[in-house]
Amino acid sequence: MTQDNYMDKEQKLNNLRHSLAHLLASAVLEMFPKAQLGVGPVIENGFFYDFLLPRSLTPEDIKVLEKRMRALAQSKLAFERIEMSTIEAKEFFKGQNQPFKIQLIEDMEKFGTTKADEILNAEPRGTGLQPRNHAESVDKVSLYKTGKFIDLCRGGHVENTSQIKSDAFKLDKVSGAYWRGDQANPQMQRIYGLAFETKGELVEYLKLQEELAKRDHRVVGPRLGLFLFNDMSPGIPFYQPKGMVVRNELEAFVREVSYGPGYSEVKLPQLFDSELWKTSGHWEHYKDDMFVLEVEEKQFALKPMNCPGHMLLYKQGLYSYRDLPLRMAEMSTLFRNELTGVLSGLTRVRGFAQDDCHIFLAPEQIADEVADLLKRITKIYKIFGMEIEDVYLSTRPEKSLGTQEEWQMAEMALAEALRKAKWEFEINQGDGAFYGPKIDMSIKDVLGRKWQLATVQLDFQMPKRFSLDYVAKDGARKTPVVIHRALIGSFERFMGILIEHYAGALPLWLSPVQVAILPISRKQNAYAKKVLKELRMQNEEFRIELDDRDESIGKKIREASMQKIPYQLILGDKEVKAKKVAVRTREGKDSGAMALKKFVEKIQTEIEKKK
Amino acid sequence: MTQDNYMDKEQKLNNLRHSLAHLLASAVLEMFPKAQLGVGPVIENGFFYDFLLPRSLTPEDIKVLEKRMRALAQSKLAFERIEMSTIEAKEFFKGQNQPFKIQLIEDMEKFGTTKADEILNAEPRGTGLQPRNHAESVDKVSLYKTGKFIDLCRGGHVENTSQIKSDAFKLDKVSGAYWRGDQANPQMQRIYGLAFETKGELVEYLKLQEELAKRDHRVVGPRLGLFLFNDMSPGIPFYQPKGMVVRNELEAFVREVSYGPGYSEVKLPQLFDSELWKTSGHWEHYKDDMFVLEVEEKQFALKPMNCPGHMLLYKQGLYSYRDLPLRMAEMSTLFRNELTGVLSGLTRVRGFAQDDCHIFLAPEQIADEVADLLKRITKIYKIFGMEIEDVYLSTRPEKSLGTQEEWQMAEMALAEALRKAKWEFEINQGDGAFYGPKIDMSIKDVLGRKWQLATVQLDFQMPKRFSLDYVAKDGARKTPVVIHRALIGSFERFMGILIEHYAGALPLWLSPVQVAILPISRKQNAYAKKVLKELRMQNEEFRIELDDRDESIGKKIREASMQKIPYQLILGDKEVKAKKVAVRTREGKDSGAMALKKFVEKIQTEIEKKK
Repeated sequence: MTQDNYMDKEQKLNNLRHSLAHLLASAVLEMFPKAQLGVGPVIENGFFYDFLLPRSLTPEDIKVLEKRMRALAQSKLAFERIEMSTIEAKEFFKGQNQPFKIQLIEDMEKFGTTKADEILNAEPRGTGLQPRNHAESVDKVSLYKTGKFIDLCRGGHVENTSQIKSDAFKLDKVSGAYWRGDQANPQMQRIYGLAFETKGELVEYLKLQEELAKRDHRVVGPRLGLFLFNDMSPGIPFYQPKGMVVRNELEAFVREVSYGPGYSEVKLPQLFDSELWKTSGHWEHYKDDMFVLEVEEKQFALKPMNCPGHMLLYKQGLYSYRDLPLRMAEMSTLFRNELTGVLSGLTRVRGFAQDDCHIFLAPEQIADEVADLLKRITKIYKIFGMEIEDVYLSTRPEKSLGTQEEWQMAEMALAEALRKAKWEFEINQGDGAFYGPKIDMSIKDVLGRKWQLATVQLDFQMPKRFSLDYVAKDGARKTPVVIHRALIGSFERFMGILIEHYAGALPLWLSPVQVAILPISRKQNAYAKKVLKELRMQNEEFRIELDDRDESIGKKIREASMQKIPYQLILGDKEVKAKKVAVRTREGKDSGAMALKKFVEKIQTEIEKKK
Repeated sequence: MTQDNYMDKEQKLNNLRHSLAHLLASAVLEMFPKAQLGVGPVIENGFFYDFLLPRSLTPEDIKVLEKRMRALAQSKLAFERIEMSTIEAKEFFKGQNQPFKIQLIEDMEKFGTTKADEILNAEPRGTGLQPRNHAESVDKVSLYKTGKFIDLCRGGHVENTSQIKSDAFKLDKVSGAYWRGDQANPQMQRIYGLAFETKGELVEYLKLQEELAKRDHRVVGPRLGLFLFNDMSPGIPFYQPKGMVVRNELEAFVREVSYGPGYSEVKLPQLFDSELWKTSGHWEHYKDDMFVLEVEEKQFALKPMNCPGHMLLYKQGLYSYRDLPLRMAEMSTLFRNELTGVLSGLTRVRGFAQDDCHIFLAPEQIADEVADLLKRITKIYKIFGMEIEDVYLSTRPEKSLGTQEEWQMAEMALAEALRKAKWEFEINQGDGAFYGPKIDMSIKDVLGRKWQLATVQLDFQMPKRFSLDYVAKDGARKTPVVIHRALIGSFERFMGILIEHYAGALPLWLSPVQVAILPISRKQNAYAKKVLKELRMQNEEFRIELDDRDESIGKKIREASMQKIPYQLILGDKEVKAKKVAVRTREGKDSGAMALKKFVEKIQTEIEKKK
């Protein structure tokens, strides 16, 4: 789908949702003629409308309203635009006893059209609607009429309610909301609705929500003993022992696949003098997002990114063209001063680490290096069963650093790399950062959600800010280009996504406990211990748990499955006698009795292949 | 050696050194009759004396003075104590034209005897001399006479200079020093002397100093490309790629030997709300050593130790006696706000990590657990060829937390553990921390220097402060005891010590580059590449460098040896023809031509055995 088609579809959906908000208000006014109306904007996946009502809404009310909305939709009402002067409009809403609408018109008179969209939508986040560029004084407003209902409205509607599919929308929930988000104002009731073009999309969305709730890493992570949060350090995870196993496995994975031969790991301080941040430009542009502290009358800050430190380390060496590409990798924890209000699970944190690397190289090396990175990205996400989509090459924006020649060369190199790696891509003209072109991509998880995870970003600026150089073949001092790259991105965010992607059932190689040994009764405990010892002898890195409690085998299996332990070895008299183990998966699949040696081979292969 | 004997020896040595300071002053006065004398205290390894002289001292002067001191010593002079009232003494020094001595007496009159020692010694650090407990007004002072020379002096001398061995002391160096360390005062010349009981000790000391200068990790570390420091983050090392290899190997070593089965690694935030530090007591007692910052109007601090976080994590779980001992290990970087003035290399830093672990356990488990720890310590330091000495069990001090019963039980458990591990030890009565008894030990390196590295410390207090508990066998809630333990201590400090211990020549398993492939000329480059490929195929974890520059083999060998690369494979025509490699060590030992397979076996074994 091209960008343009995407915008068309988005606008169409917005019109649909906005129209439904009118139908909802109309239905509410029929039920409560004295209802006072607030705002009713489009939001992600639907719409809402705020009402001041004589009483609290019941679930029964919602059903009635939904039914009435369907009836209204089916009566094929047109949306009719009416223009009025603001004076006439205020008079009209006074007659309707709608004081909030009058306030909105007054706001528009005061702040002009720039604010008008914001005012009418009240909650612009997630709507995809942008305020206009220039403020114009407002003396006219538009209203829209559907059936008997007339609402103050900027417009964007379906022509006729017959375009709304009755089975593609649904009232979702009711919550409280203060008029204009201010506790000093009256509390209104906000009715949320979901709306899509087709029933299929609605059903799919509802299923996804249900699935997401079950998979939510903020719930699943602590339940599996992976991590937890505590108010003593908001937004920084406490890796529990099992979570630390996963983290260590991921770090080993990064060292193997994201880094590897040719990559050099370093570990730099996490605390730097503000002088460094001034050189890098972070002090000017990023200071509010940094944790700042005073040390011996100087300002220091915890590092929010590795790059400035890496520039400093490069600067202390002396490099020639033969040393390039020089790949400086670091997995230290970074800190960003996010407001507690926006913190969320592992996806929005104050402390996180990345599979970060800065590659210092000569311009002529860009194509090969980036092609190598793209191949690594392909390899990594294939292992996790995720797909790469929406690949864009973003080119030189209007305001940018560097010469036309540098940009052209770099853009061509990125395009060449994309072709070398056999990636399909589109050009995003002028959407590069001011300091260099970049490649953007989405990673699609099993739920179809798209994530920005991998970063491949060229940078002409930072090496210049730090006056870095290398001795070129001809003996001249040249400035290297830098590639900022992270392939899985933040360990924390990636772990959160993995938990949801796998619904907690991490692949064998990542599982904190890989095998649970479950003797059926006390009688098999001795054999169970022998099996444990034998497994450990075969490979001391196997992560095995023996459950020899005096509990029923049913309970043991249930708990091991709840803990998402990939393999359970059920040991009864039969197994003891046959000197075998009965293998069961966490999904409940029985592979029957097996010689221990065969089982070891089986899991060894799976671990190696990262299945 | 017992503590008492140690004190005797120390006092004897101090008397010797102090007497030599008098001989030096006497010799200086003979050379410069108008010399004005400052202070002349005992310091570590010797003494110094400050003089205001008519001209700068030359190396020739020092030789003359040293010779004169030997002559004085050999003339068997007695030290004779003379007591005078401060008035008489001031009069005496006025006659001698010694204004600094008069100032010293005035100070003693003013500040009393508490200050007297400090005043006379001027630099109390490292002397082992303690100021007296109570101030007494001073109206009398003592002077000591040797030959013709009389000095204001608290005493502590040899009876007769014949007790000084002429070949066991040496004038060391001259430096500038302001009277009383104040730049506003006259600049004096400070002559340093080294002095020991025997010639052997002096020679040994000089050899050690020479060796230490060569091994200084602050010089060797950056030269080997292991780490460096930068003013943008004083006191926190920048691990360069090679240093990071060593660090990662040490972390793997810790996971294997210092932790291992039964240990659970965690990773907690490095930033905590001050509320946590208030609960732990650090806010009250340790705040000045912490990096403090404000976040959303609350005080936070970077963690200087892991314990409070671990207490918090324990508290969020629910544990029974069956879960104990619970071993919570963490290697996160810790931060201490040391003054820039005291920072030094890797030994005094602002950022460091430990092989830290907190063991939560029932009192009856202490003996077995501690015995296990002592065995691990033995194992670890044997690997590094270091010795464990001066083992003390420190018992309950006067002021302490916990009951007499708890202390007795814990002390007995520690003693039992020491016996189980077959460690010889002495009791340090009353020298435990107020929160629990502990085991102290020194680790002796190859230079005979002793280090405090391993910590095994019981703690009754912290679990109580955090109200931790576990369900005992009888169902009652009990408070666990905590063992704070680190076996190698700080990674940074340990790496610094290792560099000096091995003089940079780290053992094979720790070496950043293990094998250098050195073709004699361009002709052997193709074969060298084949050898490299073959070695990588044999074990992709071998760390190998190929030096195929157009440089002489002599230069290549020299540089590889300077870089302390354990093995060099020299490849000439002979080796190409025989399909072998000529193996040379960094010490210059040739093992002759060898089949590559044999070499692989050899280094594989050495790496595994951590030789």
